[in-house]
Amino acid sequence: MELGMVGLGRMGANMAERLVRGGHKVAGFDPSADARKAAEANGIAPASSLEALVKSLPAPRVVWLMVPAGKVTDDTVDALLPLLARGDTVIDGGNSNYKDTLRRAQLYAAHGLGYVDCGTSGGVWGLKEGYSMMIGGDEKTVESLRPIFETLAPAKDQGWGRVGPVGSGHYTKMVHNGIEYGMMQAYAEGFAILKHKEEFGLDLHQVGEIWRYGSVVRSWLLDLATDALGKNPNMDGIAPYVVDSGEGRWTVNAALELNVSAPVITLSLMERFRSRDSDSFADKLLASLRNEFGGHAIKKE
Amino acid sequence: MELGMVGLGRMGANMAERLVRGGHKVAGFDPSADARKAAEANGIAPASSLEALVKSLPAPRVVWLMVPAGKVTDDTVDALLPLLARGDTVIDGGNSNYKDTLRRAQLYAAHGLGYVDCGTSGGVWGLKEGYSMMIGGDEKTVESLRPIFETLAPAKDQGWGRVGPVGSGHYTKMVHNGIEYGMMQAYAEGFAILKHKEEFGLDLHQVGEIWRYGSVVRSWLLDLATDALGKNPNMDGIAPYVVDSGEGRWTVNAALELNVSAPVITLSLMERFRSRDSDSFADKLLASLRNEFGGHAIKKE
Amino acid sequence: MELGMVGLGRMGANMAERLVRGGHKVAGFDPSADARKAAEANGIAPASSLEALVKSLPAPRVVWLMVPAGKVTDDTVDALLPLLARGDTVIDGGNSNYKDTLRRAQLYAAHGLGYVDCGTSGGVWGLKEGYSMMIGGDEKTVESLRPIFETLAPAKDQGWGRVGPVGSGHYTKMVHNGIEYGMMQAYAEGFAILKHKEEFGLDLHQVGEIWRYGSVVRSWLLDLATDALGKNPNMDGIAPYVVDSGEGRWTVNAALELNVSAPVITLSLMERFRSRDSDSFADKLLASLRNEFGGHAIKKE
Amino acid sequence: MELGMVGLGRMGANMAERLVRGGHKVAGFDPSADARKAAEANGIAPASSLEALVKSLPAPRVVWLMVPAGKVTDDTVDALLPLLARGDTVIDGGNSNYKDTLRRAQLYAAHGLGYVDCGTSGGVWGLKEGYSMMIGGDEKTVESLRPIFETLAPAKDQGWGRVGPVGSGHYTKMVHNGIEYGMMQAYAEGFAILKHKEEFGLDLHQVGEIWRYGSVVRSWLLDLATDALGKNPNMDGIAPYVVDSGEGRWTVNAALELNVSAPVITLSLMERFRSRDSDSFADKLLASLRNEFGGHAIKKE
Repeated sequence: MELGMVGLGRMGANMAERLVRGGHKVAGFDPSADARKAAEANGIAPASSLEALVKSLPAPRVVWLMVPAGKVTDDTVDALLPLLARGDTVIDGGNSNYKDTLRRAQLYAAHGLGYVDCGTSGGVWGLKEGYSMMIGGDEKTVESLRPIFETLAPAKDQGWGRVGPVGSGHYTKMVHNGIEYGMMQAYAEGFAILKHKEEFGLDLHQVGEIWRYGSVVRSWLLDLATDALGKNPNMDGIAPYVVDSGEGRWTVNAALELNVSAPVITLSLMERFRSRDSDSFADKLLASLRNEFGGHAIKKE
Repeated sequence: MELGMVGLGRMGANMAERLVRGGHKVAGFDPSADARKAAEANGIAPASSLEALVKSLPAPRVVWLMVPAGKVTDDTVDALLPLLARGDTVIDGGNSNYKDTLRRAQLYAAHGLGYVDCGTSGGVWGLKEGYSMMIGGDEKTVESLRPIFETLAPAKDQGWGRVGPVGSGHYTKMVHNGIEYGMMQAYAEGFAILKHKEEFGLDLHQVGEIWRYGSVVRSWLLDLATDALGKNPNMDGIAPYVVDSGEGRWTVNAALELNVSAPVITLSLMERFRSRDSDSFADKLLASLRNEFGGHAIKKE
Repeated sequence: MELGMVGLGRMGANMAERLVRGGHKVAGFDPSADARKAAEANGIAPASSLEALVKSLPAPRVVWLMVPAGKVTDDTVDALLPLLARGDTVIDGGNSNYKDTLRRAQLYAAHGLGYVDCGTSGGVWGLKEGYSMMIGGDEKTVESLRPIFETLAPAKDQGWGRVGPVGSGHYTKMVHNGIEYGMMQAYAEGFAILKHKEEFGLDLHQVGEIWRYGSVVRSWLLDLATDALGKNPNMDGIAPYVVDSGEGRWTVNAALELNVSAPVITLSLMERFRSRDSDSFADKLLASLRNEFGGHAIKKE
Repeated sequence: MELGMVGLGRMGANMAERLVRGGHKVAGFDPSADARKAAEANGIAPASSLEALVKSLPAPRVVWLMVPAGKVTDDTVDALLPLLARGDTVIDGGNSNYKDTLRRAQLYAAHGLGYVDCGTSGGVWGLKEGYSMMIGGDEKTVESLRPIFETLAPAKDQGWGRVGPVGSGHYTKMVHNGIEYGMMQAYAEGFAILKHKEEFGLDLHQVGEIWRYGSVVRSWLLDLATDALGKNPNMDGIAPYVVDSGEGRWTVNAALELNVSAPVITLSLMERFRSRDSDSFADKLLASLRNEFGGHAIKKE
């Protein structure tokens, strides 16, 4: 097929490259000239503007967005709207909030344009291993894009599917990331316990390697954790500072909206908050309160 | 009544003083000469050794222990054993683990000695306001000590009681402290949220004052938190480092033994662990793992 | 002062009555004729409609809303708007989401109308003991309402205050309720542990009574819990089904928005979700998964 | 090699069979005649007693225990002691608490006997896919058992290793299971959220299938969850009742002992407690307390 890729960052560039390798014809736009140049070297036809990108595509056009969620996606969606024509389709492959997706899809539908949301997992490894894609949208539209998904996926009929109407793809990806937070935290806690059991002198990289084969906890995340522990067993030079990028808190919000208890996903997120708050007011107040009632000593800063 | 107080630290000295003020005759022992001297100034007859203390008491003797839980209590209990005679009673008013109490009581019973556990709450304010006492032991023995408890309590018939057989006093106090952890953490989280809502410019001391009268969350801990916020609104100079002294983790152990879900008490304890682990290995691994799969930047130490 | 009370339910009727007792002149409206009749018996002048209520008040008018948060408040606020005149003031004393309050206040300000939010705590006990009130709004407007707050509060200068601009009152009350969830859960967990420690045969009502005097965990909620345990020690006939009314989840949302870790408040809320989900899909999947990997038996429904 | 297998239940029988298939000579004992008969059909030489089993083995003997942790393991270890001779080795492949293992190993060492702990993961799938084995013990002893481990593992040099001194194998397996609890709970929460988002009509089996390929959350547990969701999408007939078998709570205890925060592992365990407590006293007290302060209705049982 032929399609345009908007956003040639880490994810977009890799996906465009995988599509080119798979025999598709891909035009690409990114505001960064360097990014366009790098993409060109990988067989992607660079476009100097959104307009140029759209013009370079045959109708009905297919444009894949791989840009940061939120304002950038909104701006891009708005900028593309007048450039597209009835029958064209935009696929948002980024980590958009599904509520934004529903709003954007409604806008596009009102103009006779297709809108598909594709929750995309796989990170920097997707170029090589393929991407897992949870797709929301009109059945016919999604079906028309099949060759694209078959190429991006790990295998033709594996790791992708239309899960429901527009919005459901990003919703499913959001929950995917919530689960990811919980799994990561479970591994981190477990390895931390092993690390602190100093009398056994455990080699955490070795433990990870053992678990990778035959154990109940084997997983891709374990493969990566084991790799990380092999390269840097004591996590030297790494700050205990864990960023979150939004999907986790959306998942908690979703749980709240549905009255579903999700303690592990929620705690995993809040533990990240705590990791970034080295000056916790709550903990200072707790220390102060212990002093108030019990005369317990306070550690000074 | 007449009794001996072993341990004239913050808690023991105050309790002895409250007993003296209440008309009791109190002899006191502490390894520290300064502590003995300070106690003497408050009307307590100082004893230079456990032996001297015991000898100074009329039979049947009553000895109150107010010493650190664990080894010190064990050593004291063992040292007193040969000094006491059938019919004497030891009251452990400290924060002993109830399992230790059961063991010690069994030993004492085998020698015809009474053993009473008194979970004591009230902290440094008890001298003035009286202590809350959860008492475990033989009914008759506890009843014989009634004048002591009536004096130590906030009022003659308030804030104390025999809750069950030996061990049950310390068990009840243990759970009391578990609840305390949860309440403290709830306040700390709430005030932290208010603190971070900078646009409203809230005065946390004022908020605490408002809540102290008529609100659902009014409590003695809130009185203290409000006081602390009045003296140091930004918790300047206080490290976000929260100590725990054992009862919290025993409460979690108790929950595990009984298959009772106690998420709030448990999380309150673990939040304290996290507060003391500014170099969290788990969080470093999480940051490293995010880099592994998503190429996300790592904050350097 | 003279004011109108809209909503004569449990809270509104009590507040109106306390104001009348305090010497204020109160007109009241409620869609229920029974509620109006009951209010009249307590000295409140009943109005048969919002219009009649407003007309009965002298300018500048003061109208206190004590109606359910959300749609009912929105409808009332909208219905009052054309009835009021420049200089009049509406006080929302209910549990509105502060974001709704900000929106409504903006609308009112555009019409020269005052809008004050008053987070009100105290429940059914407020009539007798007074209410704790966290007030947001323009300084001058709040000051003009001082006689009302002084009467509703437990004492003239206790339990109420302007905490900041409009919205801040409801925000502070929201966090107050979040703390309340955490405290309640802490007590509930603690008493559950004591209950399950059957070998000690503890009398939970007695334990509560002891804790009420001198202990670190003494509080008004403990007073109530003790009362409940006295009336129904085994909680016979009560379903383990805990409702939440909104402020708890807003507090969690607030924590998420501010990146503040609030594990105890959050878990308290989610535990309530779980209490209402006797058919937990998550737990069924867990049981099923244990069977998948370990051949562990599944309990049939 | 030649070895004796004690315990021919689900795990022991499978492991013995895998060893036989791998060319080892295995004698087996189980108190159940049926189990012995079934084992015989798979090439295992049945022994009618522990004595007979030990006598049938050449010195130095190797005996693998695959019996329930706790009392049964203690009884077996004690019964074997007088039957064995200096140089013989016992391997405990079950889920023993590492503290018990340390105690038993000390006893065996005093008699010149080898004791190796092998934390074994893989469940009912191990026969086909091999077992993941975390081994603790003397280096020389473990090395002498290499052929056994190479056969039981998924591949000769994968999925097994000596992680440290005796006890460290069971410790590592304990933490493995703690991580397992957290991962399982994360998946269960995520799928429950998807399930409750009824408007999207998601097919959870399909979602699981998509995630299995290329996604960040792919894992063996996900493979199994997906399989379970395929066979029984609505979990019909399965009670929301989740058993735990000990390692989870030991992991929490280990975290407490080491002052390591492990909220996700802990919450996963407590959620299982809650799943089994359909009559939660805590929740009844919460419902009762809401009624006390707010007059909120109580759901009757």
